[in-house]
Amino acid sequence: MRLVAIGGSDAGISAALRARELDPSVEVTVVVADAYPNFSICGIPYYISGEVGHWRNLAHRTHADLEATGMRLRLDTWASSIDVAGQRLAVRNPDGSNDFIQYDELVVGTGAVPVRPSIEGLDTLNTADGVHLLHSMGDTFALTESLDRIQPKSALIVGAGYVGLEMAEGLTMRGIRVSQVETLPEVLPTVEVELGSLVHDELVKHGVDVHTNATVTRLSKVDSGLHVDGTTADGEALTWDVDLVLVVVGVRPDTDLLVQAGAQTGPRGAVLVDQSMATGLPHVWAAGDCVVTHHRLLGTTYLPLGTTAHKQGRVAGENALGGSVKFAGSLGSQVVKVFDLVAARTGLREHEATAAGFTPVSTTANPDDHKAYYPGATPISIRITGDAGTGRLLGAQLIGSKGAEISKRVDTYATALFHEMTVSGMTELDLSYTPPLGSPWDAVQMATQAWVKEHQIDAERASLTKDN
Amino acid sequence: MRLVAIGGSDAGISAALRARELDPSVEVTVVVADAYPNFSICGIPYYISGEVGHWRNLAHRTHADLEATGMRLRLDTWASSIDVAGQRLAVRNPDGSNDFIQYDELVVGTGAVPVRPSIEGLDTLNTADGVHLLHSMGDTFALTESLDRIQPKSALIVGAGYVGLEMAEGLTMRGIRVSQVETLPEVLPTVEVELGSLVHDELVKHGVDVHTNATVTRLSKVDSGLHVDGTTADGEALTWDVDLVLVVVGVRPDTDLLVQAGAQTGPRGAVLVDQSMATGLPHVWAAGDCVVTHHRLLGTTYLPLGTTAHKQGRVAGENALGGSVKFAGSLGSQVVKVFDLVAARTGLREHEATAAGFTPVSTTANPDDHKAYYPGATPISIRITGDAGTGRLLGAQLIGSKGAEISKRVDTYATALFHEMTVSGMTELDLSYTPPLGSPWDAVQMATQAWVKEHQIDAERASLTKDN
Repeated sequence: MRLVAIGGSDAGISAALRARELDPSVEVTVVVADAYPNFSICGIPYYISGEVGHWRNLAHRTHADLEATGMRLRLDTWASSIDVAGQRLAVRNPDGSNDFIQYDELVVGTGAVPVRPSIEGLDTLNTADGVHLLHSMGDTFALTESLDRIQPKSALIVGAGYVGLEMAEGLTMRGIRVSQVETLPEVLPTVEVELGSLVHDELVKHGVDVHTNATVTRLSKVDSGLHVDGTTADGEALTWDVDLVLVVVGVRPDTDLLVQAGAQTGPRGAVLVDQSMATGLPHVWAAGDCVVTHHRLLGTTYLPLGTTAHKQGRVAGENALGGSVKFAGSLGSQVVKVFDLVAARTGLREHEATAAGFTPVSTTANPDDHKAYYPGATPISIRITGDAGTGRLLGAQLIGSKGAEISKRVDTYATALFHEMTVSGMTELDLSYTPPLGSPWDAVQMATQAWVKEHQIDAERASLTKDN
Repeated sequence: MRLVAIGGSDAGISAALRARELDPSVEVTVVVADAYPNFSICGIPYYISGEVGHWRNLAHRTHADLEATGMRLRLDTWASSIDVAGQRLAVRNPDGSNDFIQYDELVVGTGAVPVRPSIEGLDTLNTADGVHLLHSMGDTFALTESLDRIQPKSALIVGAGYVGLEMAEGLTMRGIRVSQVETLPEVLPTVEVELGSLVHDELVKHGVDVHTNATVTRLSKVDSGLHVDGTTADGEALTWDVDLVLVVVGVRPDTDLLVQAGAQTGPRGAVLVDQSMATGLPHVWAAGDCVVTHHRLLGTTYLPLGTTAHKQGRVAGENALGGSVKFAGSLGSQVVKVFDLVAARTGLREHEATAAGFTPVSTTANPDDHKAYYPGATPISIRITGDAGTGRLLGAQLIGSKGAEISKRVDTYATALFHEMTVSGMTELDLSYTPPLGSPWDAVQMATQAWVKEHQIDAERASLTKDN
């Protein structure tokens, strides 16, 4: 049995690891386009900031660790095309020669590529000019090379999503003056504006020059560095002169290989797979950022996250060996640290829930992370979204300070969502309590109780009267 | 409608608050034996340590806050007996006069009293001698009075459970040299010895002189302070000379009032109630540390915790008004901070699971709290217990450093236990990830995966072969 996985990131490696774990007799080969298998892409901002001393530390596992599992890695090897009928993969080797790799089962994890927004000049300028995109280890080395060569005093970041925010912090930590430009009305557009504004304040507090409702329209090279033109939503002109420009406005699925082989695509152009991670092409499975995401509340969508790629890869690896497991589905749980704040979400926001056929209503509460009498208590802003009809929990968004256990509090909501709990049912959960770290009703429950008090107290009262 | 609640702590106040929330026309009276309604007993160690500046800050709500809800408080008022047939409560007023309070519904939350172990001299010595028990605000004032008067340089704590450990830290923070004596083989006996030993090490690291497998047998007053005799499990004599002795070896339910009224008792002598918190006596409900605990895995047991008292009180208050809610049951979720360590557990340990008819097997893993490449990563010791037959998750114990989000990680297990998840099913949970705060498979999942790898990998492999 020969399993071939394409892609050295989360999905491909997870599939390979799971296959080797389940059946040490399976011959597993991973085809990796670059020389950096199993690197933590999410860790790049912390290498740029200087917090990670050496780029090699970003590897989840070393090359030797991976080989010790018995898998074979073919690095710097480009997967050119899939011969579905012949069950073989055409590859270009590091020396430029072409080759075929025969497989019994194939798992494709080609991932995503960064979106290139339509900014005049972006296609003609490149890393030598100090204009960067950031997604791969190759991009990382190009950026650190620019940082060393240019020694920038100022930088402009296009985009204020997760990577943009982490990079604003990372470049600021290097002593670079950062301007950040976001087209949408607030930074961190994955959360409600009222919560994103707290992140906005945190950026400003740390010296980042933030422009929301603003779009970068043109980049040009000038003697002093880079000249950036933009416009506000009102059409007012904006200009910046900086030493470095970083464009991080999201990703799109890298589907060329699978589409050429005949795979169908779905939302956002991602390859359609079922929950077993089957592509519909015989013996071809796919996982990670190149495929659609099964979401427990939304059905089929596209929501590329490393955590999801790990789970999908694991499922693909098991099923390729004859297993019959299903990817249980994403809830879109995510968290980001921005300076001393942490922002997290799971499940749906109101507009997403409405589009999915729910009748969402929301309440924001601000409970302390632990008992106020114990030193260091800080408020957490928690926005709960639930269905007005059924009372079902639909989503939670949290923002608070770094020590406030935000990322693991969102996990309680994620676990509750997994089990389709009602908002009021959260009060029944037996959560832990000690004054330095929580409250008798945890902040998680104080927020759901605030939602119930706003949206269901009349119904609760009515049910009493009826029973009496 | 007149609702009377007895007890100013978690259960009584929660019942009163819920009743006022649901029906502002209900006349609610709370009979409180002392002058400190709604004080956080769990916060006492942090007042003793000096971290809480004023004892008034320990109040969850002020007297004025409580009255603003419309409830009436009768402080320093002793509930002497319940006239069940006459629906009236006999009380002794602060001035010594006796009185009756008529009720339509009664909620009893008399709580617990500290256990007095059989130590020679304990009954003859008292707080004036520097010998203290610690449970109420009255005990707290007696202790601070002793601390001010004696200015102790040394103290001995009998017991190394939650309160004992918190007090070891609190007294150490005051500059007092602490000896701690625990009869059982390890401190924090609510967790496995291998995990309790980490807490033991933390105590020693901070200068606490810890004696396990040791029992205090005799206290005597001497010129220099207090002489303490004890013995090891091997019968070897131990002696200490200290300035202060604190005895904190747990609590027993305070049931006199209910038992005299005809209530039945169950495990550990606690008053029997059903999940609606009904005592079986007409119009008499009870909640909190005085009643048995419905446990989702154990059935009826006794497990007094503040979080449980809040939930039970809320249920009792609602049902007293004609509601039909049930206490969903405890999982024994609990957490304690000891210096820079946090220890938490939820669900069952092996011996408890065996007694409850399960076939428990356990695995301890030591995943990092977040990606090792980001500064400050620390290992968490996580012991997972699951059923060998069904694969059902039965319990989790965690110990790690204060910043490692232990208390909210145990909540993910608690939520999973609530929904009767299998250990392997935990891998499906969509938990949040960012390198400074977690891993693509969170530590919570790395630990459950380690359990699966040890106990179920053969079954997983077999199921593959069968399907092929």
